[in-house]
Amino acid sequence: MTKPILFWFDFASTYSYLSAMRIEAEARRRGADVLWKPFLLGPIFAAQGWTSSPFKIYPAKGAYMWRDMERRAALYGLEFHRPLADDPRNFPQHSVFAARIALVGLQEGWGQDFCKRVFLAEFGGAQDISDPQILAALAADAGAGPDVTVRAVSGEIKALLRTQSQDAMDKGLIGAPSFTVGDELFWGDDRLEDALDWAVQS
Amino acid sequence: MTKPILFWFDFASTYSYLSAMRIEAEARRRGADVLWKPFLLGPIFAAQGWTSSPFKIYPAKGAYMWRDMERRAALYGLEFHRPLADDPRNFPQHSVFAARIALVGLQEGWGQDFCKRVFLAEFGGAQDISDPQILAALAADAGAGPDVTVRAVSGEIKALLRTQSQDAMDKGLIGAPSFTVGDELFWGDDRLEDALDWAVQS
Repeated sequence: MTKPILFWFDFASTYSYLSAMRIEAEARRRGADVLWKPFLLGPIFAAQGWTSSPFKIYPAKGAYMWRDMERRAALYGLEFHRPLADDPRNFPQHSVFAARIALVGLQEGWGQDFCKRVFLAEFGGAQDISDPQILAALAADAGAGPDVTVRAVSGEIKALLRTQSQDAMDKGLIGAPSFTVGDELFWGDDRLEDALDWAVQS
Repeated sequence: MTKPILFWFDFASTYSYLSAMRIEAEARRRGADVLWKPFLLGPIFAAQGWTSSPFKIYPAKGAYMWRDMERRAALYGLEFHRPLADDPRNFPQHSVFAARIALVGLQEGWGQDFCKRVFLAEFGGAQDISDPQILAALAADAGAGPDVTVRAVSGEIKALLRTQSQDAMDKGLIGAPSFTVGDELFWGDDRLEDALDWAVQS
């Protein structure tokens, strides 16, 4: 028996980049079914009393994270550059529009490709993924139709992102990336393999 | 060339238990030299503005950590019971006396054995590792002489623990377990293998 695994990520999250680039191959190897779930970390951080990423609030944690990301990206053979030429004002990036486009894409079949392109542009290429023109180009490359940026701001998609972010909080998520298999929660790119193993053994 | 790797841990730290039980075999497999470095997390947490473990301050993180520890201990074949029969008042435990005895033991050659016994008693057996009688028995089992609890409160050992805790902060540690190879810092049991690989490739 194999249960589906939900992959929860925020485009602003550095470690979500690693998982987004790794999960398809690791899932294929195990025969696991993955559902991609973009959501917004903001409300979850706010519930902890944080007004920004803990990597900003706690500079020692942030300094460690950037070095750790460099090492881990190298281990996985992934490009990695700090966003926008190391300008610390530009982390975390605003991810809401990217998440809304991703939801359109996940309904239409080009969503996973788009998500990987966004993460690569942001953390591999230090591009501004809150820029609508950059997002529109990435969506087109992934196969989106010309009306995607209009559809992405429809009431239906906005409501879907709110619902998905609330679902994340209800499931006890404390950060991104996270993975859920039924009620079982795994947090962090370091738990990707454990979560997939759990899904196929459930 | 192989550089020594420093293994930084606090006896109050759940994930330090996992690393303490795993590091000898993983180091042997790679031919790495490990120096065990007990220290106190308290001053590092205080520098972040925390008056206790983040697992206490942020209950959602704490809830996740206990479940994650259960799963990880099972993966590694380690006993795991929450301290003192799940009484949440008893985490984190006071680790200063255990750390001082460990420093004596590390000077005398029975330190690593003692450290593993303390972690096993605490997280495998839910015992109170701030209890001097329990600690004295664990030290005797590891090969300590009868004067160990006197030596452990000497000015020399107290100063050594303070120095070691300050060294941890100076190296940028933000939690435990951590591993350092020269200036390279790795945080968390999840980075044990990476840190050992780094040491033997440096």
